[in-house]
Amino acid sequence: MVTETTAKPPLMDLSGLNDKVAEFARERDWEQFHSPKNLVMALSNEMGELIEIFQWLTEAQSYDVGTDPRTAEAVRDELADVQIYLSRLAFVLGVDMNAAVTQKIKKNGQKYPAEKVRGTNKKYTEL
Amino acid sequence: MVTETTAKPPLMDLSGLNDKVAEFARERDWEQFHSPKNLVMALSNEMGELIEIFQWLTEAQSYDVGTDPRTAEAVRDELADVQIYLSRLAFVLGVDMNAAVTQKIKKNGQKYPAEKVRGTNKKYTEL
Amino acid sequence: MVTETTAKPPLMDLSGLNDKVAEFARERDWEQFHSPKNLVMALSNEMGELIEIFQWLTEAQSYDVGTDPRTAEAVRDELADVQIYLSRLAFVLGVDMNAAVTQKIKKNGQKYPAEKVRGTNKKYTEL
Amino acid sequence: MVTETTAKPPLMDLSGLNDKVAEFARERDWEQFHSPKNLVMALSNEMGELIEIFQWLTEAQSYDVGTDPRTAEAVRDELADVQIYLSRLAFVLGVDMNAAVTQKIKKNGQKYPAEKVRGTNKKYTEL
Repeated sequence: MVTETTAKPPLMDLSGLNDKVAEFARERDWEQFHSPKNLVMALSNEMGELIEIFQWLTEAQSYDVGTDPRTAEAVRDELADVQIYLSRLAFVLGVDMNAAVTQKIKKNGQKYPAEKVRGTNKKYTEL
Repeated sequence: MVTETTAKPPLMDLSGLNDKVAEFARERDWEQFHSPKNLVMALSNEMGELIEIFQWLTEAQSYDVGTDPRTAEAVRDELADVQIYLSRLAFVLGVDMNAAVTQKIKKNGQKYPAEKVRGTNKKYTEL
Repeated sequence: MVTETTAKPPLMDLSGLNDKVAEFARERDWEQFHSPKNLVMALSNEMGELIEIFQWLTEAQSYDVGTDPRTAEAVRDELADVQIYLSRLAFVLGVDMNAAVTQKIKKNGQKYPAEKVRGTNKKYTEL
Repeated sequence: MVTETTAKPPLMDLSGLNDKVAEFARERDWEQFHSPKNLVMALSNEMGELIEIFQWLTEAQSYDVGTDPRTAEAVRDELADVQIYLSRLAFVLGVDMNAAVTQKIKKNGQKYPAEKVRGTNKKYTEL
């Protein structure tokens, strides 16, 4: 007898990160500061640090931030900080990120049909 | 004979999402717009939409954004958009997010030793 | 004979700041980097630094950031940086900020009639 | 007798705007929502809306956002929203923006001496 599984593989899995960050906060008694409102601000602050790396670069230069080792490390660190606070925020709110991105990509596909938006940076609503 | 594995399980896995978003962009011929500089701006814009949901709420209210179904959906959608652009940015830059967050959490642990920062929202450098 | 003036006094005046910042950029040959796209990123980065000061504070604590002299100076500096890049961006784009805010406040008044939105943090569209 | 004034003319003046926005908030009983923490989030949200206009444009295109009347109006509106919340935040905190920008430009001049940073987008600390 063959058992078929119809469930698609998940697009993403943050479970290990969620546990790690929860432990990190618990060990420091920082859970009291991790309200969704505070976390969304922390996330936004980390975004600002990521932007700083790219703000004066041309688009062409922005592809090459990995060339200089110190800049490459800064990029990895800031991307990681955004990911850490994003997953923490979702975790505190009880949001299943795999379900959320799966649903959102589906919506985006309906909002931006390939044949209508191909090769344009205009919003579909402006077309 | 016992085979030992010393490799830790990964903290996170975005591989399915990376493939899906790459396909989404390719189908729309949008890869040309996905320079790191542009993607960091798109990420920042999505952050702003996430902030909008929380800006006038008290911290206590911010825990309850899931109560209203429409607000809950908006939160899931905006969290998803941030995740989608974050993973896309890392993918275009060739950054391994699992390695990046693993390394950054290690750094954070050294920067904020539990016994020094327990229960305070002051930065360690200010203590 | 009575001369009547019907022109309202301006809500704001950035002319001195505009000149000063233009001179600052010119002296450093930085005009080449001050594209609107780059300036909006720099502005966003400064916003992130402003957010950092407030992210772990309660709303009540956020009123008192002026109590500690070092924090007060950081707040003034970050508010100033946002203002400097905002005015620079408007200047490069040729936008008259006094006209823009005057027009926008008028629009906001129509969008949020006092009698409809009094005392609520809900958006008018949700009422 | 000659009266000498040694005070420099101010770089900027937001007094009319401050009064107008205070009145706008008072009429709607919105002062209760205007904590510095909330205002910095609202400011950040408006920044995100400004970024949205520029995110997929090249630097060259970003100079021309005024060409299309609808885009030009959107730019003016978003610049105005950022200015409105910035001045409101400074007002609630009791910060004199003219003094703050004057002081900050002086600091910036010391941090980035023209002869050291001319024509480079590297931070001075990296030179």
